Amino acid sequence: MKPNPYDPECSSRRALERIGGKWSILIVNLLRERTMRFAELQHGVEGISQKMLTQTLRGLERDGLVERTAYPEVPPRVEYRLTPLGRTLVEPSASVVRWTESHTKEVELAQARYDRARGAAR
Amino acid sequence: MKPNPYDPECSSRRALERIGGKWSILIVNLLRERTMRFAELQHGVEGISQKMLTQTLRGLERDGLVERTAYPEVPPRVEYRLTPLGRTLVEPSASVVRWTESHTKEVELAQARYDRARGAAR
Repeated sequence: MKPNPYDPECSSRRALERIGGKWSILIVNLLRERTMRFAELQHGVEGISQKMLTQTLRGLERDGLVERTAYPEVPPRVEYRLTPLGRTLVEPSASVVRWTESHTKEVELAQARYDRARGAAR
Repeated sequence: MKPNPYDPECSSRRALERIGGKWSILIVNLLRERTMRFAELQHGVEGISQKMLTQTLRGLERDGLVERTAYPEVPPRVEYRLTPLGRTLVEPSASVVRWTESHTKEVELAQARYDRARGAAR
C-alpha cells in the first residue's frame, strides 16, 4: 500500500509532521554541509532551546535521518551527521528554506494588506 | 537585508513555521490542482478539525498564499484557490510530500531498529 500522508492513520502523516517542522528543516539544512557538534547546532539554529534541540535530534536519529557519534574523549565529543537516508531529505528541506528566503518580503506585504483591509491593530 | 530563517528575530522564521507545518503543506499540495470548497478541503485532509482548517486557511490567506472567494448564493458558496505567490510554494511543498511518500517505509524500519537497540517497549 502506498503511504498516504492525507490519511491520519498512515505513518507517513506522522513522518510529515516531524520532517515538516521548522526545527527539523533547519537542522537537516545545516547538516547538509558537514558534521556538527551539539553546540555548533545550537549556535547555528538561533533561538532553539537545549531541550528542543535534544528532542529534535533524538527524533531525527530515531527516524534514521541523523547519526549520532559519541567519542570517548575527555571532555566527551558528540557529533551529528546526516545518514544516507537523511541526505535524501536535503533537497526538499533546502527548497522550503530557499522559498522562505526568497518570498518573505511578499508574505509581509500580504499580511500588511490583510490587516489593513480588516482594520486590525498592527 | 537577506531574510534569514536561522535568525529567530527575522520574520522568515515565522514564515517557515507556518509553511513548514503539515497542514499548510497538505493544503497547498491539494489546491495545486484546482479551486476547492471548504468541505472538499476538510474531506481531502482527513483528520483535520474544522477549527484547525479554518485557522490554517486564514493564516494562508493572510500570508497571501490562498485567496478566499465568497459567492453571494443561498446557501453561500466559499472557494479557496492558490494565489500566484501560493503557486510558487507548490513545488517545495510537493517535494516534501513526495519525500514522505517515498521514504516512510525506511523511516519505520529505522524506528524499529532504534527502539530494539534501546529495548524500548513497542
